[in-house]
Amino acid sequence: MKSYRKELWFNVPSRRAFINITPQVEACVRESGIKEGFVLVNAMHITASVFINDDEPGLHQDFERWLEHLAPHEPISQYRHNDTGEDNADAHLKRQVMGREVVVAITNGKLDFGPWEQIFYGEFDGRRPKRVLVKIIGE
Amino acid sequence: MKSYRKELWFNVPSRRAFINITPQVEACVRESGIKEGFVLVNAMHITASVFINDDEPGLHQDFERWLEHLAPHEPISQYRHNDTGEDNADAHLKRQVMGREVVVAITNGKLDFGPWEQIFYGEFDGRRPKRVLVKIIGE
Amino acid sequence: MKSYRKELWFNVPSRRAFINITPQVEACVRESGIKEGFVLVNAMHITASVFINDDEPGLHQDFERWLEHLAPHEPISQYRHNDTGEDNADAHLKRQVMGREVVVAITNGKLDFGPWEQIFYGEFDGRRPKRVLVKIIGE
Repeated sequence: MKSYRKELWFNVPSRRAFINITPQVEACVRESGIKEGFVLVNAMHITASVFINDDEPGLHQDFERWLEHLAPHEPISQYRHNDTGEDNADAHLKRQVMGREVVVAITNGKLDFGPWEQIFYGEFDGRRPKRVLVKIIGE
Repeated sequence: MKSYRKELWFNVPSRRAFINITPQVEACVRESGIKEGFVLVNAMHITASVFINDDEPGLHQDFERWLEHLAPHEPISQYRHNDTGEDNADAHLKRQVMGREVVVAITNGKLDFGPWEQIFYGEFDGRRPKRVLVKIIGE
Repeated sequence: MKSYRKELWFNVPSRRAFINITPQVEACVRESGIKEGFVLVNAMHITASVFINDDEPGLHQDFERWLEHLAPHEPISQYRHNDTGEDNADAHLKRQVMGREVVVAITNGKLDFGPWEQIFYGEFDGRRPKRVLVKIIGE
C-alpha cells in the first residue's frame, strides 16, 4: 500500500467563498503515482467545508442565499458560541450542512467522477490562512 | 491490496425517490472477494445522494416533506441556477443535506452494519439514466 | 495492508447529547499500530451521528437549538414515521444534517487533524445502549 499527503492553503479575502480545487486534487493524484485507491479531501478547519457539486455561478449564489437562510450570520448575539468573543457560530453550522470531507475513488490513476462532479473548498469564515488536507491511499 | 469497481444504473420514472440499494452493494462486496476494507458508495451525479438510514416508508415520506420544506422545488424562479434553463436547483441543495456518499467498513467479507442500517440512493431529479459508483479497497 | 476494528458503546441518559470521542479514537489508532491510512468512525444507529467540529459548550447549545428548529421533536404527530409507534422521526432527520460518519487520515501513527478538530458522537434518541464503529485500514 502506498500513501500520499499534501496540504492546500487558502487565504480567502472575503468571509465566504466557494473555490474549485479539482485541478489541485488531480495534481495530487498524479504526483502520488497511485492507480487504484481512495483520496480523502477534508477541511482542516471547523468553519469550512469540502464538498462536490456543480461549478455553476448561479448555483453558488443559491448556496450562499440558502445557507444564510438556514443559519444566518446576524444577529451574532443569537448564538451562544459568539459569547466567547467569536462572530463565526453561523460558519460552524453552515459547514455541517455542506460537510467536512469527500472521499473519491481513484481508478486507473484518475479521479473516478461522473460528468459534472467538481470538488470545492467552501469558506464560511475567511480572511485568514486555512488548510485542506489531501490524503491518498492505494496502489 | 485489492480493488473493485462497479457502476449501478438507475432510471427513476419520478422526479424524486428513495431506493434501497443494500442488496446490490452486498453483491459487490461478495463479488470483490475482499474480506477487510472499505466500500465507498457515491452518487456520480450532483442532484442525487447516497445515504444510510431506515427502510421505513413513513420516514421516507417525512424526508420528502422535510427536504421540500428546507429547499422547495417551486417557484423555480427563486434560484439563479435555474436561469440557465434548468429547473433542478432545489435538487442540488437537497443532495447537500442528504450527502453524496457513504463509506462502510467491510469485516469478515460483509458490510459491518448496525441493526437498522440500509443504504439508499436518493434521487432528486430523476426521469433519466443516472449512476452510483461502488469502489472497494482492502484485502 | 493491516486492519483494525473496535466498537465504542454509549448509554446516554438524556434524549440528546454531544460527546467528545477523540481520546477513544486516538487510543484505537495507537492500538492498531497503523502509521499511514484512514480511520472510519461511524454511528451504527440511524438516529445518531459522528461528526467533527469544535469542543465548545456554547456551540453545542447552538447546534441543539438549530437542529430543533430545522427538525422539531414535537408535535410527534407531524411525522409519518411516528405512526409506527416511534417518537424519534426528528432524530432520523437531525442525523442527516450532522452526518453518519467521518473519515480521518492517519499520518505518522496519529490523527492528521487541524488545530481545532475534535470527533463527536451526536446522540438524538438516547436512553439506551448504542454503538459507534471504529475501523482502520493502512500500514
